[in-house]
Amino acid sequence: MTTSSSPSLQASEKRFDVVGIGNAIVDVLVQADDNLLDNQGLTKGTMALVDEQQAERLYAAAGPGLETSGGSAANTLAGIAQLGGSACFIGRVRNDQLGAIFRHDIQAVGAHYATPAAGEGPSTARCLILVTPDAQRTMCTYLGASVNLEPADLDLDQVAQARILYLEGYLWDSDAAKRAFIAAAEVMKAAGGQVALSLSDAFCVERHRDSFLELVNGYVDVLFANEMEITALYRVNSFEEAEAKVAGLDLVAALTRSELGSIVRRGPERHSIAPFRLGPLVDTTGAGDLYAAGFLHAYSRGQDLEACGRLGSLCAGAVVTQLGPRPQGSLIELVRRHLG
Amino acid sequence: MTTSSSPSLQASEKRFDVVGIGNAIVDVLVQADDNLLDNQGLTKGTMALVDEQQAERLYAAAGPGLETSGGSAANTLAGIAQLGGSACFIGRVRNDQLGAIFRHDIQAVGAHYATPAAGEGPSTARCLILVTPDAQRTMCTYLGASVNLEPADLDLDQVAQARILYLEGYLWDSDAAKRAFIAAAEVMKAAGGQVALSLSDAFCVERHRDSFLELVNGYVDVLFANEMEITALYRVNSFEEAEAKVAGLDLVAALTRSELGSIVRRGPERHSIAPFRLGPLVDTTGAGDLYAAGFLHAYSRGQDLEACGRLGSLCAGAVVTQLGPRPQGSLIELVRRHLG
Repeated sequence: MTTSSSPSLQASEKRFDVVGIGNAIVDVLVQADDNLLDNQGLTKGTMALVDEQQAERLYAAAGPGLETSGGSAANTLAGIAQLGGSACFIGRVRNDQLGAIFRHDIQAVGAHYATPAAGEGPSTARCLILVTPDAQRTMCTYLGASVNLEPADLDLDQVAQARILYLEGYLWDSDAAKRAFIAAAEVMKAAGGQVALSLSDAFCVERHRDSFLELVNGYVDVLFANEMEITALYRVNSFEEAEAKVAGLDLVAALTRSELGSIVRRGPERHSIAPFRLGPLVDTTGAGDLYAAGFLHAYSRGQDLEACGRLGSLCAGAVVTQLGPRPQGSLIELVRRHLG
Repeated sequence: MTTSSSPSLQASEKRFDVVGIGNAIVDVLVQADDNLLDNQGLTKGTMALVDEQQAERLYAAAGPGLETSGGSAANTLAGIAQLGGSACFIGRVRNDQLGAIFRHDIQAVGAHYATPAAGEGPSTARCLILVTPDAQRTMCTYLGASVNLEPADLDLDQVAQARILYLEGYLWDSDAAKRAFIAAAEVMKAAGGQVALSLSDAFCVERHRDSFLELVNGYVDVLFANEMEITALYRVNSFEEAEAKVAGLDLVAALTRSELGSIVRRGPERHSIAPFRLGPLVDTTGAGDLYAAGFLHAYSRGQDLEACGRLGSLCAGAVVTQLGPRPQGSLIELVRRHLG
């Protein structure tokens, strides 16, 4: 089976390989047992939005935490930078201590991040991540300052300077961010680039199914989803039915299936990618984000879809062996060892 | 050889097993290579005090970080609480986001912490911990709000409610904290309790040798020090000479020697405690603090010195297998498995 990447991507000379828009979040990782999830009415493995009061209540009930920068698209862009790609992240923090931590961490891996911090309003977004003994994570997100990202804040010149625009589905939970998101996709299309989207979360898909379908059919060139998300999008009962749906579209779909690896489809072209097991499973936080990082980095460099899937799989395999959503070791060294 | 613990400790009925006074610090752990240490003129394995500007400059030069509550005595008191002991910590944060993280984390393990946050002045203390590939850590501390702990802030009733007062030597770097420290030791002695001290750091000993010697001779019942610190205190060249010095004093000395384990002395009584190797060495941050936690927990419960040393050794062995200075798993479960 032949495989090729987009000629327009290979030919263009742009400042950034990938620009991403997402919620700028600091994660608070806490060890938790299943009782805590039950007591708080949380569904394991999903993301729930909480307001500031709920966030405070949950935090008070949780064990000691460990803070580290997160945010789905932000993790992906940080991963692309760690792989040596030129990455730009757009998302809003408040000018507080957590905002300074977020800014430091994404800049420290070499990503470009220039969204000004909000000088007033809600504090920097936080995500309380309850890590259970089975290494699953259940997330409660207080969006805080990150929902104040509006079209006016968006540097559309930055978007046009990238070859790929990457959007996280979580942004769909804010109307203002959603408008910013569409404006950016229009700019990217007009500039001849490509648009990539992660569906982010099955509940997020449930909340916004119709507009996600419009986005997928109207703008998206590369779609990331896990099994729960893609079956939720098409309201089907099996992965196979969902895969058949995306195979009928004019896009690349990278469908992740946890320990089963991933399937990459572009119409009739199909690649089954094995997972990389690099050590004991510690924490699945960031697995999908790092899969997207590896995939998009290879894709932006014109590699074939099999190579894109393998690099995604390797990066995801690395991040699940540690606590936290961004790899602490060198991704370039990892690639040399496993794919060199 | 016979061994016994203090009868006064076993007989007393107090609210807290141990009350500790120390700097209330949030740690920022960053992976670093030896070049970064050289470029910044830092000595591996030691603690350097920095002002806010130096802290900002170092942070900007460092890689992405991972934030977690720290502080030497605070880690020890958190460990005692995790072991099921009744622990009280006294130390000052600012009323900012990092201060709220510090308060949450120490309360979440069940320690009592009621020092009011400063409403103005410097921000909560931070310690930039550069973790090199050999798992050694080099610390740069911005003391911030923690140096504003003064005798007036100290709840001496709380001190009198404990059977043991634990002090970290790092406090000696602030004159106000040093006065608070002596006041607390006087109260503890008057209440019939015991005073424990950690020498904290060899450079800290160099800076304050004479007053440390006065403290050790005048107040201290239990002394914690590693090899570098105890040889610095007595200006001797070998561990054996230092050990002979403490054997001549009327106190218990717990002298830690990294991979050689520890020596516990009380006059002629001598115990050589083997280290526990519970997994690959990841990060030595908190090793001394957790040794003190295990030791003091057993000591406060009237156990013999051999048992105190073994519990200290086990807790230290656990914390070095993970990133960060406070054990993420259950210490009670660990004790059941290894010492039960």
